[in-house]
Amino acid sequence: MPEFDEKPAPGSRRGKPILHPELDSEPAPLTLSPALETKEGLSLPELRELWMILSPSERLEAFRLLPRGDSEEFFLELHARDSSELLLALPAEEQRAWIRLLPPDDAADLTQAAPPEQRERLLSLLDETTRKEVNALLAYAEDEAGGLMNPRFARVRPDATVDEAISYLRRQARDRLGSIYYVYVLDDQQHLRGVVSFRQLFSAAAGRRVADIMHRDVLSVREDQDQEEVSHMFAQHGFAAIPVVDQDNRVKGIVTMDDIVEVVQEEATEDAHKVGGLEALDAPYLQISFFRMFQKRAGWLAALFLGEMLTATAMSHFEDEIARAVVLALFVPLIISSGGNSGSQASTLVIRAMALEEVKLRDWWRVMRRELAAGLALGGVLGTIGFLRIIIWQSITPAYGEHYMPIAFTVFGSLLGVVMFGTLAGSLLPFLLRRVGLDPASASAPFVATLVDVTGLIIYFSLASVFLSGTLL
Amino acid sequence: MPEFDEKPAPGSRRGKPILHPELDSEPAPLTLSPALETKEGLSLPELRELWMILSPSERLEAFRLLPRGDSEEFFLELHARDSSELLLALPAEEQRAWIRLLPPDDAADLTQAAPPEQRERLLSLLDETTRKEVNALLAYAEDEAGGLMNPRFARVRPDATVDEAISYLRRQARDRLGSIYYVYVLDDQQHLRGVVSFRQLFSAAAGRRVADIMHRDVLSVREDQDQEEVSHMFAQHGFAAIPVVDQDNRVKGIVTMDDIVEVVQEEATEDAHKVGGLEALDAPYLQISFFRMFQKRAGWLAALFLGEMLTATAMSHFEDEIARAVVLALFVPLIISSGGNSGSQASTLVIRAMALEEVKLRDWWRVMRRELAAGLALGGVLGTIGFLRIIIWQSITPAYGEHYMPIAFTVFGSLLGVVMFGTLAGSLLPFLLRRVGLDPASASAPFVATLVDVTGLIIYFSLASVFLSGTLL
Repeated sequence: MPEFDEKPAPGSRRGKPILHPELDSEPAPLTLSPALETKEGLSLPELRELWMILSPSERLEAFRLLPRGDSEEFFLELHARDSSELLLALPAEEQRAWIRLLPPDDAADLTQAAPPEQRERLLSLLDETTRKEVNALLAYAEDEAGGLMNPRFARVRPDATVDEAISYLRRQARDRLGSIYYVYVLDDQQHLRGVVSFRQLFSAAAGRRVADIMHRDVLSVREDQDQEEVSHMFAQHGFAAIPVVDQDNRVKGIVTMDDIVEVVQEEATEDAHKVGGLEALDAPYLQISFFRMFQKRAGWLAALFLGEMLTATAMSHFEDEIARAVVLALFVPLIISSGGNSGSQASTLVIRAMALEEVKLRDWWRVMRRELAAGLALGGVLGTIGFLRIIIWQSITPAYGEHYMPIAFTVFGSLLGVVMFGTLAGSLLPFLLRRVGLDPASASAPFVATLVDVTGLIIYFSLASVFLSGTLL
Repeated sequence: MPEFDEKPAPGSRRGKPILHPELDSEPAPLTLSPALETKEGLSLPELRELWMILSPSERLEAFRLLPRGDSEEFFLELHARDSSELLLALPAEEQRAWIRLLPPDDAADLTQAAPPEQRERLLSLLDETTRKEVNALLAYAEDEAGGLMNPRFARVRPDATVDEAISYLRRQARDRLGSIYYVYVLDDQQHLRGVVSFRQLFSAAAGRRVADIMHRDVLSVREDQDQEEVSHMFAQHGFAAIPVVDQDNRVKGIVTMDDIVEVVQEEATEDAHKVGGLEALDAPYLQISFFRMFQKRAGWLAALFLGEMLTATAMSHFEDEIARAVVLALFVPLIISSGGNSGSQASTLVIRAMALEEVKLRDWWRVMRRELAAGLALGGVLGTIGFLRIIIWQSITPAYGEHYMPIAFTVFGSLLGVVMFGTLAGSLLPFLLRRVGLDPASASAPFVATLVDVTGLIIYFSLASVFLSGTLL
């Protein structure tokens, strides 16, 4: 158990107002409670609540003031980035005890999150067995099954009896297991032969052989399988753990459900950011540096802006028409935004359905037919509203001149066309991106809108020149 | 074990082309493989792959042609909506065996998903004990902890020895447990006193008392706690199960991690749909009826359209300016879309950070300061690009006339203003919605864009009248 130095860390702030986490609607002051100065510190729930907005030195201080049991609980809960930062901020002589609290997969994540020059030293703090395991784990990419797995798992031989298996598990539990959900049945070359759930092992008659009660048809993942695929298997089958095997079906470790909840959250955040038209942030919003965040946003925003410049070019081709019929300019924002909005709906639906594997690449034809119909129906609704708005407005105040009927028809037709185009573009772009090996989530709402804006202008002014030629144009 | 009638269901289709699930880029024909006719049926992996796109009668047929072990595995994997539909399509005499395969929480979900007039009959198929448990579960809302929990869990008395506890668990496992992750320690009134992990129980000396090795400080949730809060606790603590207690701290059941992965996916989908500017679909994209999907999209699209109509009103106030300087109209789409795009980025970031509880309501002030700075920086970048584009374009082809400098300044200033406004509106709207008790995810990209469009026009034309008065205006 680590020992604590109870002095507050040198960087602590003083004389600042008290934080009330329960007053949820007031702006929080940027500083810590005086509780820290009086050496009472924050309670565990308070620290969880405030962690995100504390500075590194405040974090260290609050952590060191926690009662020992609480600080262990808290340390085990932290994400790798935070636990690594915190560990390295602690005095060197305390670090060993803390890193040894972690199971090998978490120790590997912590090491990975530390600056490269610190990694060797951190590894040297581990005991021999764990260091070997951690080194093996560090060879895997973070986002593949091998990078998620725990190399410690419950194992038995197929020829053991139920009673033997249970007492063997009791010995294993003493030194090497993390959580135990299933017992994997391995032959003497570590090949995966079967699996027994605890419930089955426990409920079976004491003298039966494991081989007789095990399931032989075990679901497993390969070491290099992508974490997103692994998370789909968990979601589909509802298992608490899945074994990770090499190409010879030898078990290397297990991935457990708790790692997967994080993966699912991460993937959903990544997709949400991309769909929102920015590069996915790699740290929580309040923690990422301003400059990193600016980079993630400015790139896409500038690219979209350059694309959107085509609207000015397109509009300049219709400058004469606008000069002759200024009324046409009034409806430009209405029409292009309708295309963007319907495109945003369609791309959101398809991207999310792809992420959940509800829709696969080969379904593009089915999706296109559906979205064609949806675009027609939605465009019809918006077109009709737009048409009626012009007719009714005109009857109240003659804002659109004597040629309001051809204008109304132009608006109706443009909305129909633009919404259909937006819906189709939004739904098919994710397929196109996936087909060429890119992330479908990059078919963001702003990207689709930009694509649709230029087309929308061309549709609108082309229809206008048909409907209004001889009258306004 | 259920018995199967091996005849294909009456609604099956014949003589249709073969499906190749491996050809991922070709449009899939809408019909099933002749494998079904030849009574070979689909394999379990094939059925999983194709399930989403099969008609109800094709599903029934393919399911009944699975080998018995596979069909049980498949049935246990299905979501409540699908398993309920499938069960009700089976002959009445087979239904009992299938519904009895399910643990009480899944049986409750299945019953909930069935049409109201079938529920009584489905319940009558269960055994007495399970029926009571299911009835108790049906009293909870689907999205609260009580609606997620399994009432069967491993329990021991605090005064049992480790050996007694293990052999008692072996008896419990025989008839009432689902998965066992932790053993909960209850007193004789079922109050929660502690928890022991299997690893701890297994590794403790045989004669020690449970009370001496258990953790007394057990995390639990209340029956009526919202599933989103429950999923945050799982994500934060990484537990495999959390006990659900009533107001007197009596254990009613456990929520396990596998239920939570589904919850996390559901919540992420709901948010993604809202952010995309539509009501969240309550069924997978390829399964929801066209009319339901149309409803979910048309409402928001029409509402946004009505809002966007204000742009036409705003533009009509500047009709004279446009008539005098048509060049102004050219930049309208560019400027308003930049506001929309930056707003979409900001609202996406804040909504996602709120969903992950990285940002709370009281952080609005911190977020606002950050977004003000981000808006300034991003607006500066876009403004500069826009400014340069006009200067450079003009030097190549004099498209903007002699007064191109004031036009360039107008565009620069408008982009700065519009991006700042978009960024602020996008980041603060989610706080505002949450503050008044609405879902922050409703601050969708299209909603923010609509809000920003009208303001953007006013900013643009106001700046134009300042910079261009005396020259073009």
